[in-house]
Amino acid sequence: MYHVFDHMGIAVRSIDEALPFYINVLNGVLEDRYTSEAPGVEVHVAVVRTADNLIELLEPTNKNSPIARFIKQKGKGVHHIAYRVDDLDKAIEDAKEKGVRFLEDTLRTNARGRKLIYMNPASTEGTLVELCSYPEN
Amino acid sequence: MYHVFDHMGIAVRSIDEALPFYINVLNGVLEDRYTSEAPGVEVHVAVVRTADNLIELLEPTNKNSPIARFIKQKGKGVHHIAYRVDDLDKAIEDAKEKGVRFLEDTLRTNARGRKLIYMNPASTEGTLVELCSYPEN
Repeated sequence: MYHVFDHMGIAVRSIDEALPFYINVLNGVLEDRYTSEAPGVEVHVAVVRTADNLIELLEPTNKNSPIARFIKQKGKGVHHIAYRVDDLDKAIEDAKEKGVRFLEDTLRTNARGRKLIYMNPASTEGTLVELCSYPEN
Repeated sequence: MYHVFDHMGIAVRSIDEALPFYINVLNGVLEDRYTSEAPGVEVHVAVVRTADNLIELLEPTNKNSPIARFIKQKGKGVHHIAYRVDDLDKAIEDAKEKGVRFLEDTLRTNARGRKLIYMNPASTEGTLVELCSYPEN
């Protein structure tokens, strides 16, 4: 079981204001933009690829978005880190056996087809960690 | 000029309490531990390599450590993200030309010989971003 670093989700107030830094300074490429209005998600997303890394810029669509609450509580910055596994069910089972709890009982599928689940930060010493897998797997 | 993702620095209260998650659940390998008591640094560091990614777990050595202040203000979690460049002076110059400010005027060298400098989060839409290069370069 390998956990390959997949991406970071970064909470921003405005994608339009944040993008120039990632594109112009870090030499990233804007790969995709989409909006998810699913309850409990409620984000505009910009997917930026730097040389070897993916960043999701996350802008709340409304003040009840989890991203809005995160920014209010902690300020802008890294919201979550995500690891890709080949067998998501097995990775979840394995993590549970090692005492990790998850924020939800079921997987989400995002707008790009990625299956994902978040660990409870109480199980990870404070960092919001996503486990995910892609349709190819 | 490529910006290669180098590592994430994660603020924790206790490396000993955080390590088992990164080793046992994310299948990381503990590569190094060291302490820096330099003024304005004041951290215990554990360097953990997961499949393709480096994590620095950062534990404050005292309550005036920047990491202690970060945890007090924002809670435990991702403290900074770092990009490696081949020519650090040129990357800094380039970023400055694009309007980025830095927290210090001079480079730091960490215990592992890495040269580094932090961008002012006001220039990056809130995320603490490190630029770094290694002695080989």
